Amino acid sequence: MSVRSLPTIQSGSLPLGTTEFEAKRSTLLSVFDEKVPREYRLPREILENPPTDVSSIPASCGILTPEEIDITESNDAVSLAEAISSRKYTAVMVVMAYSKRAIIAHQLTCCLTQWFMEDALEQAKKLDAYLAENGKTVGPLHGIPISIKDHIPVAGTFSSLGCYSTIVKDETDSQMVEILRNAGAVFYCKTNQPQSLMHLESDSLWGRVLNPFNIHLSAGGSTGGEAALIALKGSVIGVGTDIGGSIRGPSAFCGIYGFKPTSYTLPMRSFLASPAAAELNILCSTGPMCRSARDMDLFMTTILAAKPYLLDPSLIPIPWTGMRTPLQNRLKIGIISNDGFIQPQPPVMRAISWAKNLLSDDSHASLIEVKEFKPFGAAEAWSKILHMYWPDGGQVSRGAILSSGEAIHPLSEWVWKEQQAIGMKTAQDLNVMRRDRDNFRHEFAKSWEEQDVDVVIGPAFVGPACAHDTGFYWTYTSLYNFVDYPGIVFPTPIRTKPGEQYDPGYAPLSDACQHVKELWETSNFEGSPIDLQLVARKYHDNQLFAALSLLRNIFNSP
Amino acid sequence: MSVRSLPTIQSGSLPLGTTEFEAKRSTLLSVFDEKVPREYRLPREILENPPTDVSSIPASCGILTPEEIDITESNDAVSLAEAISSRKYTAVMVVMAYSKRAIIAHQLTCCLTQWFMEDALEQAKKLDAYLAENGKTVGPLHGIPISIKDHIPVAGTFSSLGCYSTIVKDETDSQMVEILRNAGAVFYCKTNQPQSLMHLESDSLWGRVLNPFNIHLSAGGSTGGEAALIALKGSVIGVGTDIGGSIRGPSAFCGIYGFKPTSYTLPMRSFLASPAAAELNILCSTGPMCRSARDMDLFMTTILAAKPYLLDPSLIPIPWTGMRTPLQNRLKIGIISNDGFIQPQPPVMRAISWAKNLLSDDSHASLIEVKEFKPFGAAEAWSKILHMYWPDGGQVSRGAILSSGEAIHPLSEWVWKEQQAIGMKTAQDLNVMRRDRDNFRHEFAKSWEEQDVDVVIGPAFVGPACAHDTGFYWTYTSLYNFVDYPGIVFPTPIRTKPGEQYDPGYAPLSDACQHVKELWETSNFEGSPIDLQLVARKYHDNQLFAALSLLRNIFNSP
Repeated sequence: MSVRSLPTIQSGSLPLGTTEFEAKRSTLLSVFDEKVPREYRLPREILENPPTDVSSIPASCGILTPEEIDITESNDAVSLAEAISSRKYTAVMVVMAYSKRAIIAHQLTCCLTQWFMEDALEQAKKLDAYLAENGKTVGPLHGIPISIKDHIPVAGTFSSLGCYSTIVKDETDSQMVEILRNAGAVFYCKTNQPQSLMHLESDSLWGRVLNPFNIHLSAGGSTGGEAALIALKGSVIGVGTDIGGSIRGPSAFCGIYGFKPTSYTLPMRSFLASPAAAELNILCSTGPMCRSARDMDLFMTTILAAKPYLLDPSLIPIPWTGMRTPLQNRLKIGIISNDGFIQPQPPVMRAISWAKNLLSDDSHASLIEVKEFKPFGAAEAWSKILHMYWPDGGQVSRGAILSSGEAIHPLSEWVWKEQQAIGMKTAQDLNVMRRDRDNFRHEFAKSWEEQDVDVVIGPAFVGPACAHDTGFYWTYTSLYNFVDYPGIVFPTPIRTKPGEQYDPGYAPLSDACQHVKELWETSNFEGSPIDLQLVARKYHDNQLFAALSLLRNIFNSP
Repeated sequence: MSVRSLPTIQSGSLPLGTTEFEAKRSTLLSVFDEKVPREYRLPREILENPPTDVSSIPASCGILTPEEIDITESNDAVSLAEAISSRKYTAVMVVMAYSKRAIIAHQLTCCLTQWFMEDALEQAKKLDAYLAENGKTVGPLHGIPISIKDHIPVAGTFSSLGCYSTIVKDETDSQMVEILRNAGAVFYCKTNQPQSLMHLESDSLWGRVLNPFNIHLSAGGSTGGEAALIALKGSVIGVGTDIGGSIRGPSAFCGIYGFKPTSYTLPMRSFLASPAAAELNILCSTGPMCRSARDMDLFMTTILAAKPYLLDPSLIPIPWTGMRTPLQNRLKIGIISNDGFIQPQPPVMRAISWAKNLLSDDSHASLIEVKEFKPFGAAEAWSKILHMYWPDGGQVSRGAILSSGEAIHPLSEWVWKEQQAIGMKTAQDLNVMRRDRDNFRHEFAKSWEEQDVDVVIGPAFVGPACAHDTGFYWTYTSLYNFVDYPGIVFPTPIRTKPGEQYDPGYAPLSDACQHVKELWETSNFEGSPIDLQLVARKYHDNQLFAALSLLRNIFNSP
């Protein structure tokens, strides 16, 4: 690792590339580092001897003013937008507060790939001038800073698919970014992601993202930078993408909200500079990550009001009603204690019990009906999806990494290991594979209908945040990519306690289940937050939000 | 060709397979032929010396009673359903009339692959008994005979992908057939299709389908059997599939209505016993073919009311409002005179003028706004889609045909000729190809927005029905498969007149355009009907029907 002028806390090393690669990488990092004013830099002693939980440092480090702390801690996007339009805050104040907090968050967790406060302040000044001149905002996100996952093009910044050779300068906004910008959003940073974009450790050439609540744990991936940044309140809304859990996993690891809509709900045009072979089988989805339910709804409402389907007809023009969607009947909720494949680690089991107890309270009986739910074919889906992600045998990603002298990171290797041997699929192979996928989807739907539920609540992951480089089993999220059902992860008050153990009567459901227990017993997860996941039928994203609207009252969620 | 005990009119020969194949084929045909009672057989003299236009023979041949002629000629499905539920007709009367008329139509045009009147009458008897006992119908299609394209599974019948080796006995209904059956539909025949399912001449091993209005012309394909059958009023509603024009082409060739919805609107589960490689790039769609606009609406309403998306979540649960959909504003209609690639043959040009004149009448100015429309990239789309259909180089279809000793028919060979040399694509090839397709779709949508139209009206084909084995250019339909926009073809009063000629000032738009002119000058198209095509944005199927509802009043269409 090269010495950075703006060091970030380290936990675990990453393999080095060739000398030439490391030189190029150093240049890249120094361009970033030199942009950061001295007054926003954390003391060396914090960075060199950090506490396990760094989540309180942004407020305590003295870099933020009391007002900046208030802006970033006491508001969600909805209240910030109100505060700006009512002139309690200016856009410049808000953008300044978030830019500063983001660069603090970065020093704690390595969550950013780019940071451009100066540009953001320019944008904010223009918005303030517009409001002053016109007496109205440019749109519902006037002055709201929004952080963007690195691979998503924002005009004037760089994007990459997670490795050096794929870095490109973007001259234009992607469609969704343009809609957000037109609605008044301000862009001020881009966030870190995994080397291959395709796993749960956000460990790109920009460094490894740490979990703010326990730096020895992963912030998740692939949208790990966003999750750490938002959890540290260095962003109010971030934009992620999810083809296996890449919004939901990191959101759960960091205790925030994350929403993976049904595919073709939100615009993703030009999100990937070159097409992902995985999408021949499994569609990716983009969505918001944030700290309140209503902020997800604001994000969805704003984007879909722009009718993005007119320019990208692959988008499905189902009108967005979100949390205003009326529930037609008593809500039938299925509870997933385990998926029959991997029993979750102890704090997740505890969170499920917490939810079940609250939902089963008699006082809600007129509104909800609670039942056990067994997801169809979790083990089968997992085994199939690992193949479905790599119809090219991983050749394209692997080649892109190696071409610049970059070293392949452990989880990059792990995700395509088996597929590499199988190699490139033919059109006919794909044809057969996709028929098999569709048959599974039909069986899954049949089982859902037979169990007669509207939504299901279950684990977001096999445990809390995993230890670095051990994010092997995304089964609880990837199942809903495989069937393409929308899913929200939401925070619970549950935190991992010291000394939590598996039940003495535990019997493994599978080898993977046994491995998950071993992973539990070889790391310390203390302090890590627990999210749960709420899922609805495909294309029933509005109904999912209707359910969320009801449940957050019961759960007393933000 | 083997001698059949139930001969059909012949026009043009088909290549013979191996002796073994022809023996198997004879057996298959004789099973069909032997089911047909003597009293439903047309006189030899009609079959051996047929008129060019056979469309009046069903009513004049003496096989049908006056009541059966009335049932089949003076009703659409909506009025038949009313007549059955009000007990004017019994289901048995209706099914008998249609079964008889269908087998007459078959002898004139070779439109059927299977005919099972006895089973159908059994179904009808049960429906009559149900109505008598319960005082109500089983559903909105109570007693309505529905014909089904051969490849779509109907319990207890056979299906095939257009060649001998793919014939299978189906034990269960496909999802859509089951919904139709539950709504009271009666199945009585299956209809002929092309050898490979992938072109416009319906020339399977069951014989070649002829155009009822001019037997020297094609009935179109791939749903050619349906089109001929419905035009001869041997069916009131038929079910087709369309990946390049296979509903719209034959419907236009035979002067009836045909609707290709946006993909994933209607259930297609188990429609193909083995998956089509073409669908890796271009999605197929299923829809109704019939004789009135409101019958299409009845079909859509009935199927979507059954919520097929619950068991096939790939279906998009946009509620169906069809012809009841309100128009929000004045309807902006684009008129396509030509697509910049192939100028249509004279009677199609005449039909466009007819439509334009009617629409431009001042009396409609408060309801509609008419403008010229130039579809984006028609030549480019055509060149791309021909590649997109055969990511396997045609290997699978070709292999399936040859495996039983069957000879490859001329248009089967033609459709994959170029692709065969290129061979099987890899996953990465497909990835690049699909990105290219998506870029085209975005450009097409942009052009549509810039031209600012709600719907477009244009040719359904480069001409009227083509001469046999010359259905080369489906450009006017396949464009809307390429972009996946919904399209309806509807009948006009225009018929091809004797001696119609190209304008003396004609200059070819392309080599294909010149070829289309040559095709015009080397055949006689007299008497062939002309349909036009109405298209709306992707997923705007309801808006398409709203426009149809308005336009059929202006056009005085059925």
